[in-house]
Amino acid sequence: MSDPNGIGLENSAAIISVGTELTEGKIADTHGRFIASALRVLAIRLCHIVTIPDDRELFVAAVRSLTRESGLVFVTGGLGPTSDDLTREVLSAEAGRELVYSEAAWQALEARLGGRASESNRKQAYVPEGFEMLPNRNGTAPGFYGEVGRSLVFALPGPPRELRPMFEDQVLPLLRSRYGAGEFAESAATAFLTSESRLEELLQKHALPGISWGTRVDDLGIAFFVRGASAEARAAVIASLRDELGAGYVREGETSAAKVLFEALKGRGLRMCAAESCTGGLIAKLMTDIPGSSDVFWGGWVVYSNDAKETQLSVRASTLESSGAVSRETVREMALGACEASGAGLSIAVSGIAGPEGASKEKPVGTVWIGVCLKGGAATEELFHFRGDRDRVRRQSAVAGMLLAEQLLSTAGGTSPDGKRN
Amino acid sequence: MSDPNGIGLENSAAIISVGTELTEGKIADTHGRFIASALRVLAIRLCHIVTIPDDRELFVAAVRSLTRESGLVFVTGGLGPTSDDLTREVLSAEAGRELVYSEAAWQALEARLGGRASESNRKQAYVPEGFEMLPNRNGTAPGFYGEVGRSLVFALPGPPRELRPMFEDQVLPLLRSRYGAGEFAESAATAFLTSESRLEELLQKHALPGISWGTRVDDLGIAFFVRGASAEARAAVIASLRDELGAGYVREGETSAAKVLFEALKGRGLRMCAAESCTGGLIAKLMTDIPGSSDVFWGGWVVYSNDAKETQLSVRASTLESSGAVSRETVREMALGACEASGAGLSIAVSGIAGPEGASKEKPVGTVWIGVCLKGGAATEELFHFRGDRDRVRRQSAVAGMLLAEQLLSTAGGTSPDGKRN
Repeated sequence: MSDPNGIGLENSAAIISVGTELTEGKIADTHGRFIASALRVLAIRLCHIVTIPDDRELFVAAVRSLTRESGLVFVTGGLGPTSDDLTREVLSAEAGRELVYSEAAWQALEARLGGRASESNRKQAYVPEGFEMLPNRNGTAPGFYGEVGRSLVFALPGPPRELRPMFEDQVLPLLRSRYGAGEFAESAATAFLTSESRLEELLQKHALPGISWGTRVDDLGIAFFVRGASAEARAAVIASLRDELGAGYVREGETSAAKVLFEALKGRGLRMCAAESCTGGLIAKLMTDIPGSSDVFWGGWVVYSNDAKETQLSVRASTLESSGAVSRETVREMALGACEASGAGLSIAVSGIAGPEGASKEKPVGTVWIGVCLKGGAATEELFHFRGDRDRVRRQSAVAGMLLAEQLLSTAGGTSPDGKRN
Repeated sequence: MSDPNGIGLENSAAIISVGTELTEGKIADTHGRFIASALRVLAIRLCHIVTIPDDRELFVAAVRSLTRESGLVFVTGGLGPTSDDLTREVLSAEAGRELVYSEAAWQALEARLGGRASESNRKQAYVPEGFEMLPNRNGTAPGFYGEVGRSLVFALPGPPRELRPMFEDQVLPLLRSRYGAGEFAESAATAFLTSESRLEELLQKHALPGISWGTRVDDLGIAFFVRGASAEARAAVIASLRDELGAGYVREGETSAAKVLFEALKGRGLRMCAAESCTGGLIAKLMTDIPGSSDVFWGGWVVYSNDAKETQLSVRASTLESSGAVSRETVREMALGACEASGAGLSIAVSGIAGPEGASKEKPVGTVWIGVCLKGGAATEELFHFRGDRDRVRRQSAVAGMLLAEQLLSTAGGTSPDGKRN
């Protein structure tokens, strides 16, 4: 979805992450994403993130091929003192430069390590001739940068707590002055309870001239990014999607159902509780994932058994008997019982068939009733038919419950003063 | 751990992860590490992990260069229904094969999506001629594999919850039969609440001659695979790790804390409940992730506020006042209250500081008390000091709670007949 126009060698970039511990899966590469995010803001297009083991032949091949294709190359790792740390040797050879000893780098290293600087550390005081050093505040290996072929190559240390400050404090200012602070003209929104293919169809249908888009699919929602044209045109595209999918299911910005509800509760000074059967605690888990959730989350029940529904939430045995655990009547009583037992201003109740067991012809897997209730105020129940496996049904149910609760709050006001801080 | 001797094209591998959301830093690539760990166990050497945007030219170049260099290539992503999903087109063109429509794939897709399968989904029913399909239990996009040049190329879906089961259930057995010379002389175990580097150190320390190993790191535990030598020698290595890390934290086979507890409860005909503060429903969520969990899971409380602890679990206000919400006394009363309110045979209570708020000098982030209690029987409480952010502290707390409960069950018997089916 990135705009291919005008992207040449100059503002295309590549990352080479070097380390056998990465290709053996012992640690995860986190630099790719970190550097990618930073470059995006500068409108520099990242075309390759390449991870290779500590192997001279593979390293040389990667440097040769990527310096041909990219104006900017970041090499992370391989700056340590051991024999498998190859970055200095490989880059100086590919740049056609000698490695030269830097007394200043050695002094900095000695100052850092005190008496513990060993002869193997001395290697770390060498840089390719004519390259600039990047002092390392948080480790022994200085970084450096200079030209290899037509590319500007940055060599950065592997440990994230060394690389990140070096990148932010030293590399970014250099890139900013060279590339300018280009910003994407972009609007973001998040769609819930729809599929990627449906979203793509709708984007194709409603895209205006000059507008492109991208999506980021998450387990619980799909963020989409509308780029180009004017802010009004981008807003119009998002408004069309809201019409098609329902206003409650398309939210501004890159967000989550839990955050949407969190903000709505916080804005009204209300606390909520959750009465969960098939979601088994997932709503509570998602709400309490948010730091500071104790301001808006009183607590909840996982009423997996009928006994729990009756004893904890005062659901009547006769209701369970006559309507079943998955019914409008049961979730209504669950929601009401939860508000009463907690004194919280809002409750969400969920009961459904997540599968693979428990289904019947009338109530197949994916049948989910959700009830929400404001203390002493409005209540609503809605029936959903979700598709997918147990995990997917549970996730969709949790998202639907949180969004339905936020909708009730915004339509019914939900400012019952009694509900506050109970 | 892979032996570099005799590694040629045949057992070298590459991963190509396709997605503009990856190169723009919007999401992190997790497949590289997941596949790398699995390959390591098979002694297949991973030489390249390459991430590229959804761009045909870059994609074609990556496939050409990596199929020349690697016997095995895994392509992840780009199998969706949208116009920027290029994997099918690129691989069929590079293999010199037509894309052919598979009625079976379309039927599976329709069965999955029901009436919601759109025309753009039809694209997902095409595979390169002569390639084998890999059915997708968890999403719409089937994977496929076949030869491109001299390489065996696997195309796998981008979402982790689709890729992982497909890789484990379908790709690994294929690779085992091809590279593992039939049966694996391998023993598996899972370590909990330890770090990867610590596990690696211990494996290095205790490995016997002829034994190699691999690990698969998960959010909630680290599975490790000991290969080679005799079954006795492998068992001895695992026993040594059990001694070092504590028997409760090293379990047989590739498993999870929730499964370990599920089996223990099921074997004893007991039901449990959970009283969760800082874990906010995560234990309930993990237990009810397991299909059939209603046999062993009565329900639970998320007692996030003190009010909830008092009104739902009869924790005394004086206890909260004198000892604090994060204390031995509080979790003891929570666990007891949960057993009494539910009638379940076992309860787990968790209260701790997940952060970033709520910490004090005496109780820093990561301070977590866990109490478990058998109905009318034994009870125990334990204090943990976990490291990491909110998410990590919560995950470790949930794992510790479930393992502690299983340990109490196996030492104290836990066959109180009253606890059954309440």
